[in-house]
Amino acid sequence: MRIAELSRQSGVPVPTIKYYLRENLLPPGELSSPNQARYGEHHLRRLRLIRALVDLAQIPIAQVKEIVAGLDSPTLPLHDQIGRAHRAITPTRNLTTTPEAHTAASRQVDDLIRSRGWTIEPDAPALTTLVDTIAAMHTLDHDYLTTFLDTYADAVEKFTTLEITAVTSRQTPDQIAESVVIGTILGETLISSLRLLAQESISAHLWTGHPAGPAGD
Amino acid sequence: MRIAELSRQSGVPVPTIKYYLRENLLPPGELSSPNQARYGEHHLRRLRLIRALVDLAQIPIAQVKEIVAGLDSPTLPLHDQIGRAHRAITPTRNLTTTPEAHTAASRQVDDLIRSRGWTIEPDAPALTTLVDTIAAMHTLDHDYLTTFLDTYADAVEKFTTLEITAVTSRQTPDQIAESVVIGTILGETLISSLRLLAQESISAHLWTGHPAGPAGD
Repeated sequence: MRIAELSRQSGVPVPTIKYYLRENLLPPGELSSPNQARYGEHHLRRLRLIRALVDLAQIPIAQVKEIVAGLDSPTLPLHDQIGRAHRAITPTRNLTTTPEAHTAASRQVDDLIRSRGWTIEPDAPALTTLVDTIAAMHTLDHDYLTTFLDTYADAVEKFTTLEITAVTSRQTPDQIAESVVIGTILGETLISSLRLLAQESISAHLWTGHPAGPAGD
Repeated sequence: MRIAELSRQSGVPVPTIKYYLRENLLPPGELSSPNQARYGEHHLRRLRLIRALVDLAQIPIAQVKEIVAGLDSPTLPLHDQIGRAHRAITPTRNLTTTPEAHTAASRQVDDLIRSRGWTIEPDAPALTTLVDTIAAMHTLDHDYLTTFLDTYADAVEKFTTLEITAVTSRQTPDQIAESVVIGTILGETLISSLRLLAQESISAHLWTGHPAGPAGD
């Protein structure tokens, strides 16, 4: 198809498609004449993926570019594809907590990882975020939240295993790599919105019409 | 304590504290002379909460202001406090999916909510995000991810119930309101980083040293 048709089918304006082509987010089309290129299903898929990463997961375009470059390197191991997707959804954070809270949090995270037998690189960005989050809970006198760490980890392990099994059942390495990115990033949005809905529902049952306190029905 | 001491203990610079005072994110101190105010533990707690929301949860200051205003309105029902925290962590999204994908996604979400007996306001922002995410999965040919909806919902319901029970066991309405905000927002960061770590670990076991394919040990 021509670029106008690609734009119509994807909903992405022609100037944006041209920008993605210049930036190598989208591979070039096949030249049918010196001034005209043709695009295929692969381009349509890629455009939809880029828009999902930008619009839904709100990942900055520079990082989308890095993720997409990974998809176009068929030799990049899947484990590294996951690493790229992870860095894209773990923004750098910068939090002031007390040194005591930070030490306590590091110890809790080390214990958790050891007791679950997880294999984690020491420079995994999610590790920093987890320690910072727990340190913030301590600093804010919300230590009780950290007593649920094992329950959270149980739940998370359950659906992560399911996700990874589903991804590996995909057929080609190309599809697997794309699935890793989509599953990691859209899965995050899915879980987050489900949690908010579950909270809203439980909260509505407990507190709607009971503004005086948390007593249930 | 004086403002300099508040700054030292919280790690927040004096000009930033003054900005928060002007913007009513922080209640005024008690005047000890016409030019001097004294601050207490409450101010320190509030400053730490604001920094956690801004630095760790990366919530824009305008929304932090709205959340904090809720905490300062003791008559605002807890259900509405949760609503404010939810709006703060559910950014507005704008995604192009096909109308068919959107219709299918809406139906799946309706079925899920009905089968779980959840009470959800039709204008809950997380509802839009959930429908958009599932529609994106359909558009990107990743429908298989949506077959796990019930597993995700099971896991999420389990830890949400735990969170809400813990929050309601706090003593004063003031503490409960603060806990709702901290639990909702920092809990989100906690779950997200745990999921990334679980993924990394499973991926390391499956794929490290096995760049040729997804075969496990």
